[in-house]
Amino acid sequence: MEEQHQDIKNVFCMEGGQGESSYINNSQSQSRNLKMMLYVLEETLDKIQLPRHRPGKKPLLTAADLGCSCGHNTLLIADVIVDHMTKLCGTGSLGSKDDDGLELEFCFYFCDLPSNDFNTLFHLLPQQAAAARRYFAAAIPGSFYDRLFPERSINVFTSTLSLHWLSQVPEGVANKRSPAYNKGKVFVHGASEETGAAYRRQFRSNMMRFLHCRATELKTGGAIFIVSLGRLSSTRGPTDQGYIYEVYGGMFDDSWRDLIKEGMVDGEKMDSFNVPLYAPTVEEFKEVVDTDGSFKINQLELVMASPPVVDDPADCGMAGRMVANYVRTLLGPLIDTHIGWVMADELFIRMQRHAEIRAEELVDEMCFPHILCSLSLA
Amino acid sequence: MEEQHQDIKNVFCMEGGQGESSYINNSQSQSRNLKMMLYVLEETLDKIQLPRHRPGKKPLLTAADLGCSCGHNTLLIADVIVDHMTKLCGTGSLGSKDDDGLELEFCFYFCDLPSNDFNTLFHLLPQQAAAARRYFAAAIPGSFYDRLFPERSINVFTSTLSLHWLSQVPEGVANKRSPAYNKGKVFVHGASEETGAAYRRQFRSNMMRFLHCRATELKTGGAIFIVSLGRLSSTRGPTDQGYIYEVYGGMFDDSWRDLIKEGMVDGEKMDSFNVPLYAPTVEEFKEVVDTDGSFKINQLELVMASPPVVDDPADCGMAGRMVANYVRTLLGPLIDTHIGWVMADELFIRMQRHAEIRAEELVDEMCFPHILCSLSLA
Repeated sequence: MEEQHQDIKNVFCMEGGQGESSYINNSQSQSRNLKMMLYVLEETLDKIQLPRHRPGKKPLLTAADLGCSCGHNTLLIADVIVDHMTKLCGTGSLGSKDDDGLELEFCFYFCDLPSNDFNTLFHLLPQQAAAARRYFAAAIPGSFYDRLFPERSINVFTSTLSLHWLSQVPEGVANKRSPAYNKGKVFVHGASEETGAAYRRQFRSNMMRFLHCRATELKTGGAIFIVSLGRLSSTRGPTDQGYIYEVYGGMFDDSWRDLIKEGMVDGEKMDSFNVPLYAPTVEEFKEVVDTDGSFKINQLELVMASPPVVDDPADCGMAGRMVANYVRTLLGPLIDTHIGWVMADELFIRMQRHAEIRAEELVDEMCFPHILCSLSLA
Repeated sequence: MEEQHQDIKNVFCMEGGQGESSYINNSQSQSRNLKMMLYVLEETLDKIQLPRHRPGKKPLLTAADLGCSCGHNTLLIADVIVDHMTKLCGTGSLGSKDDDGLELEFCFYFCDLPSNDFNTLFHLLPQQAAAARRYFAAAIPGSFYDRLFPERSINVFTSTLSLHWLSQVPEGVANKRSPAYNKGKVFVHGASEETGAAYRRQFRSNMMRFLHCRATELKTGGAIFIVSLGRLSSTRGPTDQGYIYEVYGGMFDDSWRDLIKEGMVDGEKMDSFNVPLYAPTVEEFKEVVDTDGSFKINQLELVMASPPVVDDPADCGMAGRMVANYVRTLLGPLIDTHIGWVMADELFIRMQRHAEIRAEELVDEMCFPHILCSLSLA
């Protein structure tokens, strides 16, 4: 049996470019939801220790967005940080503006896996960064489960809608001989208890590593702002990722089974594919932060994002396309690598059909719960 | 008349990807020549002030390569810096290795215009940076004629084979009504005195801006290592860029005139296209450094690079292809933007033919003089 490509680092990314299923053209509802959560980012910024003023050098504030993809959401985050910190320092103790009219210098780091489409991000940047020179921009290729920065070099980290991606498919989940083997499914939702436990272990280990690296990289008084997919607690544990995963995961599994029935891929190809996505509960999240011990929790809650606005909810074709594009935006590159883009096309055509049939229900239920979290270095 | 696309920042780059005319596959002779000049980089590194050891934080050394393109040469530079500084600090006053076996932390910034193919660069990086973790890597999209970094944040800048690129085609050179109009030519070599003067003014203004920005960005005791195309002094001034430009420029002009004769492009299309490349003399270079006044010159000389090795010098077809690919690597994106890639293909087919005819002479004469320079903050 073929194993799934394990080296997620060199494959995984949001769909690049600017086409119909690109992340850029399918992140509007994420952007709207994100805007509603930005007050917590501002509260996080209020807590960081302001950079000291040293003679002959403007104070420097460094911020890094972890898992930036190539979309506009990251630029929004950068703007909020620059605006808020400029306001804070204007009324704070940093003194008056100098000749260039700048009080602070800002460095903003856009971080994502090396497979991310940084070229597209850089084409969006110039108007914002080079011309108006609000901040110095840099891109960092690497996994946020590894060290990305020198010791004590960053004032604030943000990570929005990325931390639910695990560093890999958990051990055993794609292995026929393992009790955690996830036969006939591609998500943890609805899987066996063993599969659920493997996913939870992977989440804990990843999150511990994430916090450890960030604690090393943050300057004294630094903070982290996190938005990630999350789930409500349930007696079924991680295999109950919530109704939305029931709906989406089911539709995904159905489309894949269509391909198998039609003889286009074999069943093992499906059994060996798994999506390394884990939506933790608030309790699971808190437990890891407490175990790590480097951070104090300023805020940690589960919030419901509002569903996307559909121009014409009665237009099932449009809703179907929207759902298929949305899923392809998130999972496209993973699936292309596993079954090739020709077969991936076929898969998403079938998903669109399933989505058209369930259009009304899908649009109503498209409310993902999110973990919203603010941490400060203890 | 159509003006040439002036916004070089969003167009100009070395040919991306990994194809036959990509920079990656045509930079071997550059790489060999560069290796011979690296002793000057090491001497430059010897002069920088070592980062101070502060308790609880590893000393950090930051280096930036300006105009990195997406090739291997930049990775070579990064390796030389890490190796040499590690050696320097091992025998210096920085104390013993800590638990991780690291004495210094290194940050290496890869800088180029936003149109550079950073995606390809990042695919080369992981083996070197993430896995072996010799340095933290970041990419900076922007022009080195602008500020790229916060004040006093960089220990050493390098710029190899980039600084001969001007920020734009000099004013008037592509304008019919200007005395500096460069009719019937695409290079400054062999142009009118007015065109030559316009190029020289642009070089001076660009170089002043470059030095001013770097002086602001360098930490105390910082240094710069530069390799750039250069030329021997001549009574004819900038319009005599040397024999190599006579040969290459002539071949380029001939190929372009073929297209005009064949009715494929009109003459004005050629008149409005100019290559923003300027090879300064050592005297011109020194004059700008002295005028700026922020740097002292450790070393400044003109060195001859050795010609490329051709597997079979008698094979004119191979030599022709090599020359055409080499020129396309450097100028491809500029030409694509000006006449479209279909017509650019036609142009390079003709250049290959001209190069085949002159193959023997071309290979022998392919020796570009280089400015080799080391500067320290005064």
